Amino acid sequence: MKLHSFFNSSTSYRVRIALNLKGISFETLPVNIRTGEHRASAYVTDVNPSAAVPALIDDDFGLGQSLAIIDYLDQKFPEPRLIPEAIEKRARVLEFASLIACDIHPVNNLRILKYLDQVLEVSPEQKSAWYRHWVAEGMAGVERMLDRNNTGPWCFGEQVTLADVCLIPQIANALRMDCDLSAYKRSMRIFEHAGRHPAFAAAEPAKQPDYSK
Amino acid sequence: MKLHSFFNSSTSYRVRIALNLKGISFETLPVNIRTGEHRASAYVTDVNPSAAVPALIDDDFGLGQSLAIIDYLDQKFPEPRLIPEAIEKRARVLEFASLIACDIHPVNNLRILKYLDQVLEVSPEQKSAWYRHWVAEGMAGVERMLDRNNTGPWCFGEQVTLADVCLIPQIANALRMDCDLSAYKRSMRIFEHAGRHPAFAAAEPAKQPDYSK
Repeated sequence: MKLHSFFNSSTSYRVRIALNLKGISFETLPVNIRTGEHRASAYVTDVNPSAAVPALIDDDFGLGQSLAIIDYLDQKFPEPRLIPEAIEKRARVLEFASLIACDIHPVNNLRILKYLDQVLEVSPEQKSAWYRHWVAEGMAGVERMLDRNNTGPWCFGEQVTLADVCLIPQIANALRMDCDLSAYKRSMRIFEHAGRHPAFAAAEPAKQPDYSK
Repeated sequence: MKLHSFFNSSTSYRVRIALNLKGISFETLPVNIRTGEHRASAYVTDVNPSAAVPALIDDDFGLGQSLAIIDYLDQKFPEPRLIPEAIEKRARVLEFASLIACDIHPVNNLRILKYLDQVLEVSPEQKSAWYRHWVAEGMAGVERMLDRNNTGPWCFGEQVTLADVCLIPQIANALRMDCDLSAYKRSMRIFEHAGRHPAFAAAEPAKQPDYSK
């Protein structure tokens, strides 16, 4: 398998964790989204119509969108299952993943921050307030969900799931942007737990071949 | 079943389509997101920790996040299946749905437009340009995916899927905001096809009990 990835992209980070958890070895194909490599016409036409990272290449099947990739991996390599089969638990895990993948991450990713900077010409303080605002809104929801469902060391008990795979990169991203996350106690406890797991540790941005400061 | 819904919310619209396609009757519980009813503490604590619409109530199980709800309905009421089982087709449908649900809709929803207005105090022209920019970026990706995969009257052939359930509300939303979508020929052909389907027609904002101009 090959993964088109950018070290700091939290959607790429999700897929790296999932591949590691399933013990699937993969080659990283770096795509520098800071310099716009994800918008190059060959990439968009031949690899990923979403014009984004990540994209998984499994023989001749190429697939974009992190949640679709993780579902695909879960179908093809079901051990360990990241999306549970039991109907209500499955629903809770997908609900949690959507809160991060639809409500938090998209409004704070690189293309949005660039637009705020370059088109709307907001101040650095306004950009930072924007980022912190959506993190605070979203993480409050994450904590409410964890208050309702969290029991074990992971979001949903003793088994790691897609919820953890989405939560950890989101927290790492927010910490990198200097957000104060101390109020989100369950989330931070899960983040610390994940940091000690080799599948999560090996997926960190600083461990990637394209890492740069 | 009961559905907490707002007539103009395109995520609520997705779930209404899915319920109609499966022939599940439901009671609409209107939540006015313009006046902030989705942020009321009883709603957030007891109904939907995401502090958003939609939320499905199935006996004593309440679930937020439209994609999680549709997966839940697909598990519990598999006819007709909206998320295919065949591994590569399933991946393509989820990839398409994610492009809309993660890359287009979240950056243009009401809370973002309100923040642009009220906090960043952008001009009406800047707000409109923001909306059109992300629609154009996203719809270009949608068309690239359709160019690759579309054959029949729906996004993925003869059977309606989650891809159509996500695409139609997104297009309706963009048309309401006066976006020119004439370049997206496959998308618009599917939109016109869906408009003639009773499950899609009955889910339109103007047909909802809480509709207002």
